[in-house]
Amino acid sequence: MEKVANATIDACVTYTEDKTGRIRNFEKVAQGSGKHEGIYYDDSDVYKAIEAIAYSLKNYPDKELEANTDVWIDKIAAAQQPDGYLNTYYTLNGLQDRWKDMERHEDYCAGHLIEAGIAYYNTTGKDKLLKVATKFADHIDNYFRVPNKPWVSGHEGIELALMKLYHHTNEKRYLQLADWFVEQRGRGHGVGKIWDEWKDPDYAQDAIPVRDQRKITGHAVRAMYLYTGVADIASETKDAGYVKTMDAIWDDVVNKHYYITGGIGAQGSNEGFGKPYDLPNESAYCETCASVGMVFWNQRMNMLSAQAKYIDVLERTLYNAAIDGISLSGNRFFYGNPLASDGNYERSEWFGTACCPSNIARLVSSLGSYIYSRSATDLYVNLFVGSETTVDLNNNEVFVKQTGNYPWNGQVSIEVNPKKAKEFAVFVRIPGWLKEPVPSTLYHYKNNKTNNYTVTVNGKPVNAAVEDGYLKIDRKWKKGDKIDMLMNMEVQRIVSSDELKQNQNRIALQYGPLVYAVEDVDNPNAKNGLFIPENTQFQVSFKPDLFGGANVIQFKAPIVAIDQASNQVLQQEKEITAIPYFLWNNRGKSAMQVWIPEKLTSVRID
Amino acid sequence: MEKVANATIDACVTYTEDKTGRIRNFEKVAQGSGKHEGIYYDDSDVYKAIEAIAYSLKNYPDKELEANTDVWIDKIAAAQQPDGYLNTYYTLNGLQDRWKDMERHEDYCAGHLIEAGIAYYNTTGKDKLLKVATKFADHIDNYFRVPNKPWVSGHEGIELALMKLYHHTNEKRYLQLADWFVEQRGRGHGVGKIWDEWKDPDYAQDAIPVRDQRKITGHAVRAMYLYTGVADIASETKDAGYVKTMDAIWDDVVNKHYYITGGIGAQGSNEGFGKPYDLPNESAYCETCASVGMVFWNQRMNMLSAQAKYIDVLERTLYNAAIDGISLSGNRFFYGNPLASDGNYERSEWFGTACCPSNIARLVSSLGSYIYSRSATDLYVNLFVGSETTVDLNNNEVFVKQTGNYPWNGQVSIEVNPKKAKEFAVFVRIPGWLKEPVPSTLYHYKNNKTNNYTVTVNGKPVNAAVEDGYLKIDRKWKKGDKIDMLMNMEVQRIVSSDELKQNQNRIALQYGPLVYAVEDVDNPNAKNGLFIPENTQFQVSFKPDLFGGANVIQFKAPIVAIDQASNQVLQQEKEITAIPYFLWNNRGKSAMQVWIPEKLTSVRID
Repeated sequence: MEKVANATIDACVTYTEDKTGRIRNFEKVAQGSGKHEGIYYDDSDVYKAIEAIAYSLKNYPDKELEANTDVWIDKIAAAQQPDGYLNTYYTLNGLQDRWKDMERHEDYCAGHLIEAGIAYYNTTGKDKLLKVATKFADHIDNYFRVPNKPWVSGHEGIELALMKLYHHTNEKRYLQLADWFVEQRGRGHGVGKIWDEWKDPDYAQDAIPVRDQRKITGHAVRAMYLYTGVADIASETKDAGYVKTMDAIWDDVVNKHYYITGGIGAQGSNEGFGKPYDLPNESAYCETCASVGMVFWNQRMNMLSAQAKYIDVLERTLYNAAIDGISLSGNRFFYGNPLASDGNYERSEWFGTACCPSNIARLVSSLGSYIYSRSATDLYVNLFVGSETTVDLNNNEVFVKQTGNYPWNGQVSIEVNPKKAKEFAVFVRIPGWLKEPVPSTLYHYKNNKTNNYTVTVNGKPVNAAVEDGYLKIDRKWKKGDKIDMLMNMEVQRIVSSDELKQNQNRIALQYGPLVYAVEDVDNPNAKNGLFIPENTQFQVSFKPDLFGGANVIQFKAPIVAIDQASNQVLQQEKEITAIPYFLWNNRGKSAMQVWIPEKLTSVRID
Repeated sequence: MEKVANATIDACVTYTEDKTGRIRNFEKVAQGSGKHEGIYYDDSDVYKAIEAIAYSLKNYPDKELEANTDVWIDKIAAAQQPDGYLNTYYTLNGLQDRWKDMERHEDYCAGHLIEAGIAYYNTTGKDKLLKVATKFADHIDNYFRVPNKPWVSGHEGIELALMKLYHHTNEKRYLQLADWFVEQRGRGHGVGKIWDEWKDPDYAQDAIPVRDQRKITGHAVRAMYLYTGVADIASETKDAGYVKTMDAIWDDVVNKHYYITGGIGAQGSNEGFGKPYDLPNESAYCETCASVGMVFWNQRMNMLSAQAKYIDVLERTLYNAAIDGISLSGNRFFYGNPLASDGNYERSEWFGTACCPSNIARLVSSLGSYIYSRSATDLYVNLFVGSETTVDLNNNEVFVKQTGNYPWNGQVSIEVNPKKAKEFAVFVRIPGWLKEPVPSTLYHYKNNKTNNYTVTVNGKPVNAAVEDGYLKIDRKWKKGDKIDMLMNMEVQRIVSSDELKQNQNRIALQYGPLVYAVEDVDNPNAKNGLFIPENTQFQVSFKPDLFGGANVIQFKAPIVAIDQASNQVLQQEKEITAIPYFLWNNRGKSAMQVWIPEKLTSVRID
């Protein structure tokens, strides 16, 4: 979070303001003339950057950054049309063409504007951007929903944004508009418009109505944003049809399309989902934005159901595939996050389509909002992150403080300090990874090895049951109460089910919630020549000087490689170091792999 | 040729008559009722089988086979409609639908009928099938060309057949009809009919008019058949536009799309050509029928130009990629002919789409027609095949006899016995492989090593020049004259140009015109572990008991493999045996490769 505040947001600001014309586009609209720079969806990056700034300012106040953002917001406000419409691309290229091409992201940009407006208001109390966003939302509502003019969003996102606006304003129209957008899909409105011989409606989840959908398809970010919005709507409306859709699609994702890193969207060709069980490692797309979306969706699914399995998935994606998208330095980004590399892949400073940098920035800087959830009376502990917060439970302020060093070790303390002593439940998530790697049939711990855990309250064992993945500690809580949790972390060998052809005779290493990778920078020739026999002994040690402090897994294992001196192929026992997957490519280009052969079954020269 | 006569034709007859309904379809049409069996283009396989039988009967007379073929022909004739139309699929399914779907091969089947009719007449003197074919050709001419009704053949082939009919009958209408078919292409007639969102006009060389085409595209067999017909037409009409097209496309094929085996059509997805220089080995499609078509086309290009380079290509394709399509036993067939295999690929007894067996059968049994060509006065020796023939040169009968054991060695004797002593030229092809592997920039002999040759007439050195690849021996030829040719064969290491990414650090072995392959059945673990260092010494020896007699290349080279005893990767010097590529997979399934690493540059375990 600190790196995002210090480096990532800097990069976003520089690229938004200086190195690209994203802010200049707004200035040109206000001046009434000029040529649009960039791509038609570039406004969204400005909004996403503001959203990331808003979250970050909460933890790292920065007057200068805030003042600069206020200037941006003035420029954005000055670019809004009298009727509420706001899009620099269409305004500079001729407003007569607006709202004609469903694929051109006008509503998508509106969604990000709404999210930014709310976030900035929540941190700063300033409502200028929110007012702009609300006026645009009203424009859209009057333009589309009120006259029921057919429109399929070519890139979803506005639905979840409208749900945020609904929760913020309590204005039911926004809920209705969000639902209207969802219900537009699968009715054929896009055929011959967005969809032609080159593009299938499946690409944007528009082949059949959402409530009939049972399989994940198409572009991964679009899908995640859509289903996040749908889950939001279902939470509110209790729409059983939507819940059925969500449950089926979630099962489809985690049981057929889910990487061990929590990444999704295996294919680059459609930036999305491929055939079931087709999860190549080196060509895995696993877009950073898709992981961000997967975190959003699973948070909503958890809020909808109070089931911890969604947080298991969220945690895996967050700590592995998602934060892999950003460098330790905070200013280099992966668009895709493969599980193996021949050493030619590295993070970039920026992208033409720059969705990922600000997306990972807004996710990381809003990490605080993923730690807890609550019902009217009870508290849910979802993530184990050192933090302090105050929660209002049934008109009783409860101060909660977590300490520990998770995920580097499994010791976590949670102070529960209610203002008034009172009976309520604290649901502590018992991470799924203690028993099995994921709530999915795709991956298993070798030999069914599990990790133990203990939970005490004020030093005494807890007599409580696990419900839906949470240990329900229901008692009269009083000041100074403390939950201590000890999760025993062991190095786990993960094996894949038979359907995952690419991973047969291969294992992945995991420690706690983190998936590990072997990088050639530590282990020459490991990418092509390493195998890890079954009896290998692993040692975990925390290296304070490595990556600012990280656990590494070390072990002795054979590497098959060409010996330069003798020009012979040799197999030699080497000392191997595996690092957390998300930390790879922080020491220059290097070959890397997550899934490593277990037995020496075949050898091939080139 | 003997195996084709004894085994292949047997297989074709059994499958045509018994195991599939191909002959029964004709019976049903004659009876006026019944359900069509098989696929809409299955009639063509019957015609192609008859064509193969016709060629084979010339060298291997067989009364029983001929009588059986006469019965087939009676059945075919009985199935012809009064207006000349003949197609069992459309006749059994309802004639109202005929000539509506350009993709349904009605004209393609007609082409094969014409070829069969001419071939059967030429061997037997029986004209029943030829009359049927001619009547169908007349129907097509009257139905399409005369009223100029637009029609793009969805699968070319009729053009070259009509040119054969033109040459046979001297009836100009057939030349005009062939040209009319060619000129139909690239005019948009197939758009929305054959071509839709899934299929591009390039697939059947229909994107632009033939005379504007400069690049090879699409389905390889379609392309070869088309350009064979176009070359035939150009030979007759001297159409400079067509010649320009042919030259450009031929250059494109051999310099960008040509395998060292002479195979073409790298991709299975379109059964055809892919991107320039994209020539994968293990997934190489190289359909047997495409090689047959490549032989056809290059023969026509040679006849059009009298340049030997076309025979160089023809010979390479014939002796490698084409005859690889048939087993030594004569009754097993490859549809595709890859240059590497992991050992799971083998020849089949038959195919649902059974184009290849009868196609390779007709090619092999007509081998005699590829040995010589001639002008009005002169003789061209193209292939070196033991044979006897009599050629009429300017009203002088010349008996020509070749003896030798080519391609197993390079010693060839050609007796030239004119009835009357007379001055004329014998053009003896000096095979291109003596100097460079192919007339192409794709492949080269390592270190520019070449093979020497000598030619004598009646034991005396010849003072003659090489013109367009032929040694022109212009003299007064008399009875008993004899040309002796000695081509020095050395094992050649072939390297690929930089553009062929798949072949970098790899060599192929060649001896004479034959490309060699290493099969794991001779050399365990060779497919994945063999490399052939630069200083390797090769020995060639003729093994009379192997494959009925064949040269093998033997050498010592290192193989990297897993040693079962120690469960270690070891590199060991082994005695390696390479066999002619076309003979692989005649001893059961086995891994195989043509392009073999030269240096130990990388190793990979799985």
